[in-house]
Amino acid sequence: MERKDNKENQIYAADIVSIREAQLRIAPYIHRTPVLTSTSLDFIAGKQLFFKCECFQKGGAFKIRGASNAVFSLEDGQAAKGVVTHSSGNHAAAVSLAAKLRGIPAYIVIPKNAPKCKVENVKRYGGQVIWSEATIQSRETVARKVQQETGAVLIHPFNDKNIISGQGTISLELLEQAPGIDTIVVPISGGGLISGVTLAAKALNPSIRVLAAEPKGADDAARSKAEGRIITLPETDTIADGLRAFLGELTWPVVRDLVDDIITVDDVEIIEAMRLCYEILKVAVEPSGAVGLAAVLSQRFKQSAAWNESSKIGIILSGGNVDLGVLWESFHR
Amino acid sequence: MERKDNKENQIYAADIVSIREAQLRIAPYIHRTPVLTSTSLDFIAGKQLFFKCECFQKGGAFKIRGASNAVFSLEDGQAAKGVVTHSSGNHAAAVSLAAKLRGIPAYIVIPKNAPKCKVENVKRYGGQVIWSEATIQSRETVARKVQQETGAVLIHPFNDKNIISGQGTISLELLEQAPGIDTIVVPISGGGLISGVTLAAKALNPSIRVLAAEPKGADDAARSKAEGRIITLPETDTIADGLRAFLGELTWPVVRDLVDDIITVDDVEIIEAMRLCYEILKVAVEPSGAVGLAAVLSQRFKQSAAWNESSKIGIILSGGNVDLGVLWESFHR
Repeated sequence: MERKDNKENQIYAADIVSIREAQLRIAPYIHRTPVLTSTSLDFIAGKQLFFKCECFQKGGAFKIRGASNAVFSLEDGQAAKGVVTHSSGNHAAAVSLAAKLRGIPAYIVIPKNAPKCKVENVKRYGGQVIWSEATIQSRETVARKVQQETGAVLIHPFNDKNIISGQGTISLELLEQAPGIDTIVVPISGGGLISGVTLAAKALNPSIRVLAAEPKGADDAARSKAEGRIITLPETDTIADGLRAFLGELTWPVVRDLVDDIITVDDVEIIEAMRLCYEILKVAVEPSGAVGLAAVLSQRFKQSAAWNESSKIGIILSGGNVDLGVLWESFHR
Repeated sequence: MERKDNKENQIYAADIVSIREAQLRIAPYIHRTPVLTSTSLDFIAGKQLFFKCECFQKGGAFKIRGASNAVFSLEDGQAAKGVVTHSSGNHAAAVSLAAKLRGIPAYIVIPKNAPKCKVENVKRYGGQVIWSEATIQSRETVARKVQQETGAVLIHPFNDKNIISGQGTISLELLEQAPGIDTIVVPISGGGLISGVTLAAKALNPSIRVLAAEPKGADDAARSKAEGRIITLPETDTIADGLRAFLGELTWPVVRDLVDDIITVDDVEIIEAMRLCYEILKVAVEPSGAVGLAAVLSQRFKQSAAWNESSKIGIILSGGNVDLGVLWESFHR
């Protein structure tokens, strides 16, 4: 009862109004990505699947949706000093690109262990790279320093209303492109993507089911949902380099109240999903982007109540920035 | 003058009527494939590019368009005995799939050097594999034998009105999806794809330019066009395994009269185009499928008259059936 009351009275960080505003604001800067289907993958999954291909998005991932919404929401005076962020890569490239489109500087703090292709993307879009150690602490400290020195505005990767609203625009497109879907499966990390997707989808269709897909080696969201409070982990260990962040205070309430379940998958399952995307869909999907398909194909999902109640499943392939060498080597582990 | 008269009086194997009929006939069996764009690739090419992604087509290549048109054009009596073809792979898989959809047997003669993933596709779609030697002669001899033994109808990979008409449906979609394009670049092998694409595109817009893209190691079409008669080669040597066939008597007149130019590219250029498709578009494109982008990026094209006259270029990414190992190894040659 307590949880239900909580849910009904809760005001979340974004809503259908802010998400529709985001859609108008970012339309000139993003791709409306296609939805692909595959009879072969439907057969393997035992369900009808609709792949929302954010790997074809500008910058190779969904992140430009939130980043362009945040950057183009700034007042001119604020914007002039530039923007700063810290990120393992896709958000960094997206902020660089959005800043370039607006004609303002972007200062990007990148941990030393970020994938090469993601760093290249940042440079390609004109972001100024500032290196940090791999820890969240180091990233945040370096970003704060840059912020103090330049006066740039921090664009948080997920714990931000504009970011969540921008990511939510995926649902507006997906439910138009594949109106019959009853379930959406979304990768979860800091929770910006799933919060936006969930708030938009449930506003349009309250009965739609939203499932989070999470790597076992970074299962803070699953643990948080099980315990009813934000849990962080001392360390993470997964091939999905984009899914190592922990929930924030703006994303947690959505995950707690509105995300129906969290399915965890191991790296072997993620790699197999990447392989199927490559071999059957012909789409390059990065590990973090393939986790949704991995969840749909998992035994855990097949044994859940949601399995019986799902027939048309939307899967968000959230990004495609994977070094080919990493892909090839992962297939031969 | 002689050539112009010839062109005006020539009746070609297919026309806009047969292509529109094909579109209606095959609609239930094929994907309407998306057109992708990329600011990064536009920048590299110096032109606005529109990628028609037939790698996302059923079976991973455009071939299902022609194959389903041919298979579903058969009378019931003819169809019952099944169909037979010989192919290096994509046409074979497409005929297998089309036959499966119609519920009839497919006998597929495959040369021993065909890529593994293409043979897997044939088996996945229920085609009965019959091996031949790699030569065209051996393929044709074995196919004839199967035909005699089973009574199956031969579905030629390109020298067939129904095949040409089916492939032409790509233009109907492309010109709807990207109405402003002034140039289409198409891989050429036996000429079925480019004949259909050219006949449809020029019927809709007579001023549209159609350029063929051909590997230097299998440049029979370029030689044929230069000499004004069908030239075949004693052997071919290219990574583009789908582009080793020679023009037929139905496709040659279209290439001779209506294709504006043929751009040849070497394997290094093809591999670089595959890499760009993978890294920037996030699309798995096989060597034969990447030859169009390779042509657009070539010096040969930049030095041609067509370069100055082109601004919006449609590129047909004709297929995506590439073993990941082949892709990886080709990048490290």
